[in-house]
Amino acid sequence: MSVRMRISKVLADCCPGNDTNIAGWVRTVRSGKEITFLAVNDGSCLESLQVVADPALDNYEAVCRLGTGSSVRVTGVLQESPASGQRIELRATEIKIIGAADQDYPLQKKRHSFEFLREIAHLRPRTNTFGAVFRTRSALAQAVHRFFAERGFIYVHTPIITANDCEGAGELFRVTTLPFEKPPLVDGKVDFAEDFFAQATGLTVSGQLEGELFALAFSDIYTFGPTFRAENSNTPRHAAEFWMIEPEIAFADLMADAALAEDFLRFLCRFALEECSADMAFFDEHIEKGIVKRIDAVADSSFAIMDYSEAIGRLEKAPVSFQYPVSWGLDLQTEHERYITEQIVGGPVFIINYPKDIKAFYMRQNDDGKTVAAMDLLVPKVGEIIGGSQREERLDLLQQRMLETGVNPEGLWWYLDSRRWGSCPHAGFGLGFERLVMYLAGMENIRDVVPFPRTPRHAEF
Amino acid sequence: MSVRMRISKVLADCCPGNDTNIAGWVRTVRSGKEITFLAVNDGSCLESLQVVADPALDNYEAVCRLGTGSSVRVTGVLQESPASGQRIELRATEIKIIGAADQDYPLQKKRHSFEFLREIAHLRPRTNTFGAVFRTRSALAQAVHRFFAERGFIYVHTPIITANDCEGAGELFRVTTLPFEKPPLVDGKVDFAEDFFAQATGLTVSGQLEGELFALAFSDIYTFGPTFRAENSNTPRHAAEFWMIEPEIAFADLMADAALAEDFLRFLCRFALEECSADMAFFDEHIEKGIVKRIDAVADSSFAIMDYSEAIGRLEKAPVSFQYPVSWGLDLQTEHERYITEQIVGGPVFIINYPKDIKAFYMRQNDDGKTVAAMDLLVPKVGEIIGGSQREERLDLLQQRMLETGVNPEGLWWYLDSRRWGSCPHAGFGLGFERLVMYLAGMENIRDVVPFPRTPRHAEF
Repeated sequence: MSVRMRISKVLADCCPGNDTNIAGWVRTVRSGKEITFLAVNDGSCLESLQVVADPALDNYEAVCRLGTGSSVRVTGVLQESPASGQRIELRATEIKIIGAADQDYPLQKKRHSFEFLREIAHLRPRTNTFGAVFRTRSALAQAVHRFFAERGFIYVHTPIITANDCEGAGELFRVTTLPFEKPPLVDGKVDFAEDFFAQATGLTVSGQLEGELFALAFSDIYTFGPTFRAENSNTPRHAAEFWMIEPEIAFADLMADAALAEDFLRFLCRFALEECSADMAFFDEHIEKGIVKRIDAVADSSFAIMDYSEAIGRLEKAPVSFQYPVSWGLDLQTEHERYITEQIVGGPVFIINYPKDIKAFYMRQNDDGKTVAAMDLLVPKVGEIIGGSQREERLDLLQQRMLETGVNPEGLWWYLDSRRWGSCPHAGFGLGFERLVMYLAGMENIRDVVPFPRTPRHAEF
Repeated sequence: MSVRMRISKVLADCCPGNDTNIAGWVRTVRSGKEITFLAVNDGSCLESLQVVADPALDNYEAVCRLGTGSSVRVTGVLQESPASGQRIELRATEIKIIGAADQDYPLQKKRHSFEFLREIAHLRPRTNTFGAVFRTRSALAQAVHRFFAERGFIYVHTPIITANDCEGAGELFRVTTLPFEKPPLVDGKVDFAEDFFAQATGLTVSGQLEGELFALAFSDIYTFGPTFRAENSNTPRHAAEFWMIEPEIAFADLMADAALAEDFLRFLCRFALEECSADMAFFDEHIEKGIVKRIDAVADSSFAIMDYSEAIGRLEKAPVSFQYPVSWGLDLQTEHERYITEQIVGGPVFIINYPKDIKAFYMRQNDDGKTVAAMDLLVPKVGEIIGGSQREERLDLLQQRMLETGVNPEGLWWYLDSRRWGSCPHAGFGLGFERLVMYLAGMENIRDVVPFPRTPRHAEF
């Protein structure tokens, strides 16, 4: 087969007079008297290439009848385009019809609702919106790896199947090969000794604990992999399966952690603006007006830091009535978070030093005996986007917190070992990758930034 | 905290006379009369930094008693090292003992077996071998993303939880939130309508089918994510959870697929040799003699292509007796594959056009009616490392093959849709990431290239 050139490359680099060969899917066909225009898109960029077909083509009749969604391969010569909004077009010397598409093709030229498009998630990547979303998602994943690689972090694949927290935690998916109809029983209880892993296992909710083990060998590591929640919640922000990024740094405290999170988020914002500029402009025009300006502001801003206790004080004095109560010791709700970042600070802000009773056992206790070295990064329009903490590196205090919070130390003997020999201050955070994509693309439903979303009652494709 | 410099950077870039500050874990302590040497490693590279402590330090006594595995932070001045094998050493002005390690620390200075180290997978990254393995694994993951990003491929996260093939396939892990003790039953069978996804679901064995959908929108895509096999096989090459890379290219045939696979593998070989040279030299010395030369040969070679039928003919004439039978229509076993690549070809070779009866339903039928456009890439010492095919893009032939092979078309309506509208020739392959790491590091057991391996009866950590 002759070498196919990507349309993104043709549009960016080629000149009138160049021969070229492209392939893609027909978005529109406009037939005039003497000439027919095809808009052909190959997914490499938002823009389609205008192909000019004239009656001299052997199969001109068939070309005029091409349906939206057909695949074609076109050979021809580039020429300056007289039409506005495009620099060049391709005058075809040959158009091979590869795969036809008839009137039943669901993506005819009209606007479809996102709800409808979710039902045809196998075809929606062929639309402008989802083309832009999944190109941006891909670019951001590259940006994540690039950020950490440039800084010498080791990428770790932490386990997906895990035996941690598998005793009764409601949010866990169980993983098993036991026969459902007749599970082996001992004293009326399922005998997991017969299961594939000889114990109860489930899908991981976080790679953090294993990530910490690697940070205590490689100093700076990150994970980037799928995590799971069996929460039966049908909200636009929750999915049962999502990807998470979790860096962990050794010999580091909460301030170093916050500095890393700030660098990271600003890098991602800049990357989206620079490397996905056409798609970002599309989001600005069609998905969320002003998003480019908003992201640009975050990329340029220096993030504030505010103590949880101060945040509570400011919220208590705020001249608005919140739906949820505000009081020292209670967690912040999204309405509170947004008020802080949008009204009080006017930009991204880390809230630090949360009450220990609302935070996880592994967070480092502060000297006040009441708070832990936790941080949440709040950004306008969304609220919390990153959550992290310095970890409790002191064995005795960690054991004490496990007892207080009902975490069984026996299953985590290896985690405790990491505090037994060569322990050191370390810290990390988690960023939900889908939340990031939603934030940077302006998409409001997590189902619309995941290729094939998994939510309650939905595991299609 | 003062800024910590990575030891890899100190060793590569710094000069005698520079002030520096490092942190890491003590590998060895050698106390002389007047002076004590600590080898400190922070995981950023194989090499440790030699720290020179003298009695003028406030805590000299404590430093002399430091156990292997202790974590320290050292401030000092770099100086030329009189010892052989190292350019510079760090004369300490301050050594902070961060986390002690006592005599019970399992990694004392002696050689441990890989079997023993698997039992302490939480600590083994602190050894030379596993430091090198997991740095190389991380570097190779970066290489995978870089290769595809440079070539304009879109990275796709295909689903982990899937309803495909969930009706009885033995190799699938079931994913569920149903109560085991009392699963809801209808007519004596489990009622999956009550399960989280309202149907039977399991863990994916491949992202290919969903990847194809994206290739038919973005032209060139790849996946890189975890896949699963519930095979109860305890071999050095099988794990229940492993990562796979699956590119898929549109408007492409089997030869384009093979060219991509060749470029990819050679890129990865070159990357390992160039970016992981110290770790590769370590593998060459301690894990597999000659591996650098072997990998170098692959990076430089042009891969051969041989028809399956020819391969069978050559094997039948081979002057050796194989354990498994050789006959047209049978699959190649590792002994056959190795004989072909090592003895017949003397280098990497693609075997193409396998009998259709031993291959999957989605592979494109050749015109001979007997074979499909499949390819396996064989490399010396290992046998098959990459498997791929051109996909059947013709709806009627695809449906026919599904019927012949017992695949239910109803569950794959969306896959068939992709052949209904705008279908086109496309092809792809799969590379098991762990197999790649084993190949490039010379490690012989898959359990030793996965941070926390999952195998039958093992899901620790």
